[in-house]
Amino acid sequence: MQTVNVAVMGHGVVGSGVVEVLLAHEESIALKAKNKINVKYILDLRDFPGLDYSDRFIKDFNLILKDESIKVVVEVMGGINPAYEYVKACLEAGKSVCTSNKELVAAHGAELLKIAGEKNVNFLFEASVGGGIPVLRPIAQCLAANDLYEVFGILNGTTNFILTKMIKENMAFDDALALAQQLGYAERNPSADVDGHDACRKICILASLCFGRHVYPNQVRTEGITKITLSDVMYAGIAGYVIKLIGHSKLLDDGKISADVYPALIPNDNQLAGVDDVFNAVMVRGDAVGDVLFYGRGAGKLPTASAVVADVIDCVKHLQARKYLSWDDGDKDYVVDSKTVKTKLYVRAKVNDVIAAKAAVFAVLDEAEFIVGAEDNGEVAFITPAMVEQELTLAIESVKELENPAILHVLN
Amino acid sequence: MQTVNVAVMGHGVVGSGVVEVLLAHEESIALKAKNKINVKYILDLRDFPGLDYSDRFIKDFNLILKDESIKVVVEVMGGINPAYEYVKACLEAGKSVCTSNKELVAAHGAELLKIAGEKNVNFLFEASVGGGIPVLRPIAQCLAANDLYEVFGILNGTTNFILTKMIKENMAFDDALALAQQLGYAERNPSADVDGHDACRKICILASLCFGRHVYPNQVRTEGITKITLSDVMYAGIAGYVIKLIGHSKLLDDGKISADVYPALIPNDNQLAGVDDVFNAVMVRGDAVGDVLFYGRGAGKLPTASAVVADVIDCVKHLQARKYLSWDDGDKDYVVDSKTVKTKLYVRAKVNDVIAAKAAVFAVLDEAEFIVGAEDNGEVAFITPAMVEQELTLAIESVKELENPAILHVLN
Repeated sequence: MQTVNVAVMGHGVVGSGVVEVLLAHEESIALKAKNKINVKYILDLRDFPGLDYSDRFIKDFNLILKDESIKVVVEVMGGINPAYEYVKACLEAGKSVCTSNKELVAAHGAELLKIAGEKNVNFLFEASVGGGIPVLRPIAQCLAANDLYEVFGILNGTTNFILTKMIKENMAFDDALALAQQLGYAERNPSADVDGHDACRKICILASLCFGRHVYPNQVRTEGITKITLSDVMYAGIAGYVIKLIGHSKLLDDGKISADVYPALIPNDNQLAGVDDVFNAVMVRGDAVGDVLFYGRGAGKLPTASAVVADVIDCVKHLQARKYLSWDDGDKDYVVDSKTVKTKLYVRAKVNDVIAAKAAVFAVLDEAEFIVGAEDNGEVAFITPAMVEQELTLAIESVKELENPAILHVLN
Repeated sequence: MQTVNVAVMGHGVVGSGVVEVLLAHEESIALKAKNKINVKYILDLRDFPGLDYSDRFIKDFNLILKDESIKVVVEVMGGINPAYEYVKACLEAGKSVCTSNKELVAAHGAELLKIAGEKNVNFLFEASVGGGIPVLRPIAQCLAANDLYEVFGILNGTTNFILTKMIKENMAFDDALALAQQLGYAERNPSADVDGHDACRKICILASLCFGRHVYPNQVRTEGITKITLSDVMYAGIAGYVIKLIGHSKLLDDGKISADVYPALIPNDNQLAGVDDVFNAVMVRGDAVGDVLFYGRGAGKLPTASAVVADVIDCVKHLQARKYLSWDDGDKDYVVDSKTVKTKLYVRAKVNDVIAAKAAVFAVLDEAEFIVGAEDNGEVAFITPAMVEQELTLAIESVKELENPAILHVLN
């Protein structure tokens, strides 16, 4: 059995997990990869004395780049710089790259895949969406005989944990966030999670893969969960929904797509409604297969590391063959303005006079479904019929009886 | 772009679906397979006049076997004979084979995989478990960095449809079965489904793949759903469970495994509990990744055909390279007697005197949890603590106050 040398760039949570999994499962991985995998270098600017493998740490990226024995490079540094330059240089040097870096793939995926194609090496990033859950490879391979037309999912475990606490334990947003921080699920600065940026990167990657053209983060309307109140959670529950932060992308009739991240009311009988705590789930819809759902832990050291290592195994096993993962470059007109797409909305607002407000709503949206119970709090809450979103918001704004209405999307 | 010739053996529901998908998606499939795929022969003893592709039908298998231009053969005839002889001959002739035939794979998988390995061709059968849901390939590839230790799932859509009708609409078993037959979900002779044989074949394949050695159908204790009553469904509901037919296999401490098919009480908060109607779901547990669930339509012409075609694409793309799918031969001692494994049981029985019966149960199982409401029907129903199964059944049998107790498993 031959030995293939790999380098791991970054020794944070995921990076140390990757090294641990590669060492702990050395023999079974060698059987699967049909080669021994040797971690020759670990690139990190910090020192890690006292580890079994402390002698493998280096601080100079060029040692990896110039070492022709390194066939596969794992990028788990995170962030765009210097990850982008390093990954690009590795691919151009004919090394395969595996990464968990969703920010990098969402920003530069099409370009990096193109370089990998030209150099006949692999650029794999299963761990960038759904952590350890197999999602990207099954979409690319197993659903290859399908025309996919919709993908959506709970893509961020931190926000799902917070919403689950709000839904199941009636905990206010701030308290749930504090608990998530205490448990290590949320960062001190939680913006990437609670404002939806993390989910945005993931829906970019999913939409790019499902529909074949790159979607950039700035093309995705992104809304976080900071404005969700316990009233919203309660009214949604009364109406038979739960509120989840979802990434959502749909192929439209003209070949363009919509792409959004928003908190949405999910019907209780939808498979996503039962996905709680830090779990993630991705639903894909194809013309032949119908609905397919992938569920599991979307983050965490070992789940994510195991996905990266599976990519490494695949690269080592296919040093001479490319995997199918690829998509074309994007276009500024490819993602439509979501306001032009049909949707249902949920609306909640303080009112002076419940009966007058309801009448005013009915006057513009005669199929609105009011949620009972809101009136006890001097509010109205209702779900609109499905219409083009900007027409809906115009109609809602025209009802002067609604004070500062809070508006959420409803998944059809 | 080169053209690769394939043959399809069998033009039933799945076979005609395979041909339709290959023809309808010809261009996009060629892009993914990096070769044009040409259906050269369709083997079926029946005549199919009037189709666009009627000229491709043949009745002599030897035309396929002896045609060296046929690189990939699709076996969708079903049954063991002559599928087994044909598939074996094709593999030995150096042709890759894709099949949806779970009976064949469960009976002869290890042998056929071995021949494929010797001939350096592929033997793929994604569609044999979970229809169109990607399950086998993600387990083999994406979870490759994991030691898997448990796999279980709702593997049969027909029985899940029947149980869903019983649970949600209080329909009796016979009526639900009749409805399933009327809708085309169940065969005139429903035994393969309702007696658990279909699920048995699928758990054999899953356990073989997850744990690395072949499991044969006669090694799996198999129990169907014909004895489930509406009382069981109701009592389970009161206690916070739903009854589902599951295939279940677990790696034990000594390297052996357990493998069962049985109707089991599933806790409402388990992801399987929400899998209704004809949907299937497979849960896999790994040391690094934790719980991963795959969900979708487990049967049907197009979902199944799309999985077969994805395998064909994979074979065509990898004519020179083998996929990793493989496992070792089985052994008669490899699967333990399930009675020696720890489990919880649900027990329901008619009794003459509820109070006396409960006291007698408590005398032998002091942690039994009685389900309130059963006494209204002159019955007791309870859930036992987790113990070795044969000790539990001995204890239950020792309680003379229980008349013909009905016993079901409870998923922990």
